[in-house]
Amino acid sequence: MSEAAQTLEGWYALHDFRSMDWTAWRLAEESERKHALDELHAFLAQWGGVEQQKQGSTAVYSIVGQKADFVFMHLRETLEELNEIEVAFNKTTFASYTYPSYSYVSIVELSNYMGASGGDPMENPEVVARLKPELPKWRHICFYPMNKRRSGNDNWYMLDMEERRAMMRSHGMIGRKYAGKVKQIITGSVGFDNWEWGVTLFANDALQFKKLVYEMRFDEVSARFGDFGDFYVGNLLDGEKVDELLKL
Amino acid sequence: MSEAAQTLEGWYALHDFRSMDWTAWRLAEESERKHALDELHAFLAQWGGVEQQKQGSTAVYSIVGQKADFVFMHLRETLEELNEIEVAFNKTTFASYTYPSYSYVSIVELSNYMGASGGDPMENPEVVARLKPELPKWRHICFYPMNKRRSGNDNWYMLDMEERRAMMRSHGMIGRKYAGKVKQIITGSVGFDNWEWGVTLFANDALQFKKLVYEMRFDEVSARFGDFGDFYVGNLLDGEKVDELLKL
Amino acid sequence: MSEAAQTLEGWYALHDFRSMDWTAWRLAEESERKHALDELHAFLAQWGGVEQQKQGSTAVYSIVGQKADFVFMHLRETLEELNEIEVAFNKTTFASYTYPSYSYVSIVELSNYMGASGGDPMENPEVVARLKPELPKWRHICFYPMNKRRSGNDNWYMLDMEERRAMMRSHGMIGRKYAGKVKQIITGSVGFDNWEWGVTLFANDALQFKKLVYEMRFDEVSARFGDFGDFYVGNLLDGEKVDELLKL
Amino acid sequence: MSEAAQTLEGWYALHDFRSMDWTAWRLAEESERKHALDELHAFLAQWGGVEQQKQGSTAVYSIVGQKADFVFMHLRETLEELNEIEVAFNKTTFASYTYPSYSYVSIVELSNYMGASGGDPMENPEVVARLKPELPKWRHICFYPMNKRRSGNDNWYMLDMEERRAMMRSHGMIGRKYAGKVKQIITGSVGFDNWEWGVTLFANDALQFKKLVYEMRFDEVSARFGDFGDFYVGNLLDGEKVDELLKL
Amino acid sequence: MSEAAQTLEGWYALHDFRSMDWTAWRLAEESERKHALDELHAFLAQWGGVEQQKQGSTAVYSIVGQKADFVFMHLRETLEELNEIEVAFNKTTFASYTYPSYSYVSIVELSNYMGASGGDPMENPEVVARLKPELPKWRHICFYPMNKRRSGNDNWYMLDMEERRAMMRSHGMIGRKYAGKVKQIITGSVGFDNWEWGVTLFANDALQFKKLVYEMRFDEVSARFGDFGDFYVGNLLDGEKVDELLKL
Repeated sequence: MSEAAQTLEGWYALHDFRSMDWTAWRLAEESERKHALDELHAFLAQWGGVEQQKQGSTAVYSIVGQKADFVFMHLRETLEELNEIEVAFNKTTFASYTYPSYSYVSIVELSNYMGASGGDPMENPEVVARLKPELPKWRHICFYPMNKRRSGNDNWYMLDMEERRAMMRSHGMIGRKYAGKVKQIITGSVGFDNWEWGVTLFANDALQFKKLVYEMRFDEVSARFGDFGDFYVGNLLDGEKVDELLKL
Repeated sequence: MSEAAQTLEGWYALHDFRSMDWTAWRLAEESERKHALDELHAFLAQWGGVEQQKQGSTAVYSIVGQKADFVFMHLRETLEELNEIEVAFNKTTFASYTYPSYSYVSIVELSNYMGASGGDPMENPEVVARLKPELPKWRHICFYPMNKRRSGNDNWYMLDMEERRAMMRSHGMIGRKYAGKVKQIITGSVGFDNWEWGVTLFANDALQFKKLVYEMRFDEVSARFGDFGDFYVGNLLDGEKVDELLKL
Repeated sequence: MSEAAQTLEGWYALHDFRSMDWTAWRLAEESERKHALDELHAFLAQWGGVEQQKQGSTAVYSIVGQKADFVFMHLRETLEELNEIEVAFNKTTFASYTYPSYSYVSIVELSNYMGASGGDPMENPEVVARLKPELPKWRHICFYPMNKRRSGNDNWYMLDMEERRAMMRSHGMIGRKYAGKVKQIITGSVGFDNWEWGVTLFANDALQFKKLVYEMRFDEVSARFGDFGDFYVGNLLDGEKVDELLKL
Repeated sequence: MSEAAQTLEGWYALHDFRSMDWTAWRLAEESERKHALDELHAFLAQWGGVEQQKQGSTAVYSIVGQKADFVFMHLRETLEELNEIEVAFNKTTFASYTYPSYSYVSIVELSNYMGASGGDPMENPEVVARLKPELPKWRHICFYPMNKRRSGNDNWYMLDMEERRAMMRSHGMIGRKYAGKVKQIITGSVGFDNWEWGVTLFANDALQFKKLVYEMRFDEVSARFGDFGDFYVGNLLDGEKVDELLKL
Repeated sequence: MSEAAQTLEGWYALHDFRSMDWTAWRLAEESERKHALDELHAFLAQWGGVEQQKQGSTAVYSIVGQKADFVFMHLRETLEELNEIEVAFNKTTFASYTYPSYSYVSIVELSNYMGASGGDPMENPEVVARLKPELPKWRHICFYPMNKRRSGNDNWYMLDMEERRAMMRSHGMIGRKYAGKVKQIITGSVGFDNWEWGVTLFANDALQFKKLVYEMRFDEVSARFGDFGDFYVGNLLDGEKVDELLKL
């Protein structure tokens, strides 16, 4: 048996992808649409308040293409809070004009391949800031889930710690080259959802997603050991852009 | 031909995952919703009665994310009883406001890689308690189905008994480290459903699911031989929380 | 090129899995439900008549879990007769309260790995009885489709006849141990449906399905060469139990 | 780089699998059903006329099982004509009582592994008759798409021409044994649809499909290099049987 | 770690595949259909205007078979513009008579395996014309997404640059043979959608798609390293043909 990497966990995450039922929305009464939009803005305000109080964070982005129309990415302290958010949303009039497209349940994670710096990491404000982050409001989002491969000779979980550490270090180097261009939030989902990790990237220039992910693909960690799920890419939705998206 | 491990079987299990049709629920008459809730509470009471009489057990949990809204996990003596439960449920008004999301048919199983202690195990109250368990009412549930891999050099069923036993022992050691934190119920589904086993975990701290499953992934049994289906995670629903979930 | 095993074929088989639209059924007029039930009983009577005249056979079972509510398994002399059965069913009022879940087209098959006993096998009443069987009315059914694997070094169709014969003999031995407990009907579907064979098992004790299939999995034929589709398990539906299933 | 086999192409092919919405059909006004049937017969007559003028060919078969209710297999000179046929069909009242189940776009193909006989093959009436065939009106149809495998050591496209030619010759020998029993039309779909070839078989005895495909599976071309999609099997529908299928 | 090829990127691309709800379209009021068609023509005119101003390009093709009825392929400077196009479309009456079938998000890409010619390539008008192309209005379109394989010994991303360059050169040679017959636009989708590249081909003779893709399949790059998604093939839709497609 190989040694598991140590991990630190912060807030739970729910990526909630939704699509509009555009025909129903178009055919709805003006007053119904107004009411539904008010509900949505009330949620945005409420989620913003939680973020201001540093009890969680929420990002709202449109999604390009037919996979979904938008995504709510929520970070909260517990799975119960995440469930309450989705249930509260589902009970609204606005929700009736949407349908679920995809969701992902995970938890913000730092993996400790680099070794700890000593002391209780949860006392380290920098570590806590990464585990309980305020989600960036950059122009673009990219989300994809992934596994480490366990296939024949390409079995990540059969490698010893040293090999994995060396590869992860090289992998991290690529990420570091994109500092300031791409902000990356890794969430662990072993035991929570169908893949082992979720990767959420933020950038002001969407092309940087492609540059980063493509460059990493030549890195042995990804080349030999990375299996990837569906990719979602989108554009920031602030309150004003939400109105623009939904106005007829 | 390799020797098959001996197994002991107890109650049959049905995991019944369901989603709400929230729009229909919201638009229903108050009296209709009241009637539907009464039906649901009558089921909860009935299933509770069966559990008190030790004729079976039922756990009810919400599910986080879009895969389902909640799960009923039922244990009963026969497949006929499980089928009666689902048919009775399907005939209700409440069921009309839900739709099926996923289900799993299996049977509580103890595999006997460790060797028997002599005597008829079904006379051993501890064994019987594990084969016909009262399901925990802990805060969180995690469910996933799995296979033992049969692929090229990683073919579990071509290993001899000694190799399998040694690996299962090491595997069991990890589980034991989580005693008191994670309660694990293994159900066998060969011949009953699409995977070979179902794994149902209970914990008061959901993070322990991740810790346990991730640590096990580095164990050779999982690393080389584990293939996993979809993962579901959720929160306990008692009668009060059911009302909260469904009230508008 | 490897030599193909000789096979004998009997009746064509259609497994027709269906689910109820329970909401529509519950909301239907009592008279409509009565009419629909009468149609269903008329079919059961008609199929029973065909069976009595030894022109075919039909088994009707409920299915446990969400994959389907019940299955009609029909054996008939020709594909045209099977198609007529499904079309006649589809035209009824009762069918409007069901929707198709899964189906499988195949033909009862005996593979002749053991060598022929000489003479025209179709003159042998025992062989004919196996090729044109009356389906058991045992308490439980189990159905799954399967392929022989063709993958890298595990390629069944590249083995020579002797190797395949030896493995099939060992495989058959396991089946024989379950004589009287599990009745097995093998149907071939190469050229008819998506897998190469359908396996239909009958038992009065459903646990025997698990015991048999699990034990076989350690047999090289299954361990190295068996790929399996979805598993369905269910309970016998006679005319009375059909009424019970459908009464509100 | 390995040498590609030379191919000759004839008519484009569209396999258009459709299912009936039986409930809507049953509930339709008699006059509406009459109108819809008239439309369908008009199409059958029109397609028959094209066939008589040797500008194309159409086969109409029912499909056994739930995958579809029937298939139109059309051969035409251009992709535009095939698209016109489907669009014209979609605009009818009859089409509203059907829904699409599966389709396949390809082109009749002769692959020239055997070497050319000299001269322009399109001047050879026998070749032209095979490239622009009148589809048989035999009792049964079988359709499946397939790929040549490219997996590890079983990579068809990495073999040299001589190896492929030798295997294809042996493969062709099996087909030849079924002359008069099974008529086979190969259509190429590289660049047109999801698999590389479609195989359409016709027979008066459906069992010959199984015999042929099963025997071929032991041939190295299929055993090591054949990957297969879904199989469809059905019965001839002439004008009279169409009425029988659709009459209530 | 292997060296990543340099790439140049131009316009973002959205392939938006849609199907008609033919029954709803047929049953709509004549005036509603007229209004919907006017909306569609307004879009075609608007997209044509953007193309004339060289701010983007749009191609409109029907799709043969059931996968979709038509595709809009849009090229624009930003992901925001692509999202605006789909949202504006979704809000129309016409969109209510369609449903989404498939979409693909990518960016026009030139990969630089051949080495740069010196200087800033974006100053080179020929390069810019390829990165921000006016889409051809040829008779036929073919689209498919693809990955470079990472499987056992066939792992593109573990090859060194020289090997990849040599194979890509040979690959490019085949493409060059089809100059004038097939126009190929490669779009990169790493980080944007589920495959690594989209390939869009245009031709006046659809058979050239098959010839080209089949010939390439014997090339090592495709034979060992190409994994392909679904293939779509279609016919040019200009304004007049749009009317023909939609008129009843």
